[in-house]
Amino acid sequence: MMIVQTKLKKQEIKQNMRGGNGDVAITHITDSEILGKNCRLFAQITVKPGDSIGEHQHLGEREIFYFLQGKGIVVDNGRESEIGPGDVMVTPDQSSHSVINTGDQDLVFMALILNENA
Amino acid sequence: MMIVQTKLKKQEIKQNMRGGNGDVAITHITDSEILGKNCRLFAQITVKPGDSIGEHQHLGEREIFYFLQGKGIVVDNGRESEIGPGDVMVTPDQSSHSVINTGDQDLVFMALILNENA
Repeated sequence: MMIVQTKLKKQEIKQNMRGGNGDVAITHITDSEILGKNCRLFAQITVKPGDSIGEHQHLGEREIFYFLQGKGIVVDNGRESEIGPGDVMVTPDQSSHSVINTGDQDLVFMALILNENA
Repeated sequence: MMIVQTKLKKQEIKQNMRGGNGDVAITHITDSEILGKNCRLFAQITVKPGDSIGEHQHLGEREIFYFLQGKGIVVDNGRESEIGPGDVMVTPDQSSHSVINTGDQDLVFMALILNENA
C-alpha cells in the first residue's frame, strides 16, 4: 500500500502541446513503475480557457478521456463534438484527436493510455 | 473515435460492497472491450457519507485510487490514513484495503485496476 498526498504528485507543464495553444498541465496520478508496461499514462489534464491540445494520432495504443469539469470541443478528423462533465471520448489505435477549451473555466479531464496489445 | 455522452455510461450500485456500509455507486467510464484484457476496471466511484467499501484483498492485480471530492479514511491492514481531493492510494498485488467516507458530502474517486502481469 502506498498513499501519496496531493502535493507529492508529479506535475508537468506542456507548452503548445501537440501544436495547440497555451500551457497544458499534466498531473501524473502515479509513476510508470506502478502503471506497468501496458499503461503509458494515467493523468489529470487541465486546459485553460481558450487553450488546446493540437490534433495528433495515437499509434499502437488507445486513449480514454473522461471529462470532469468545464466545457470544450473535441475534434476527430474535422468532426467536432461538444463535451462537458461526465462525457467520455475513446480514441482507438491509429485515430487522431484534439481538444479545445471553449468555456470560461478550466477544462479538466482524466486521461488513460493503454497499449494496443494490452 | 467514440464519444459517449454523460447519461449513456453504465452505472452499477453495489449494496454492502465487500462487507461495507450502504450503497456504493460505480460508474464505468468505458466497457471491457475497450479496456482490454489487462485493465479490469476504470470507473468513478461514489461513497455516500457514513458509507464504506469493506476491507478486501487484490490478488494478481493492482489498484490505483485517485480522490476527486469529499474526505475519508483508507485502511491498510489496520493502519488508517486520512485522504481528500488530489490524494492517491496505490494497492499493490496481494495487499488489502478499505475506504470509509468520514465527511458530510459524497466521497468521489477514480479507480483503475491493472492486471499484475500487465
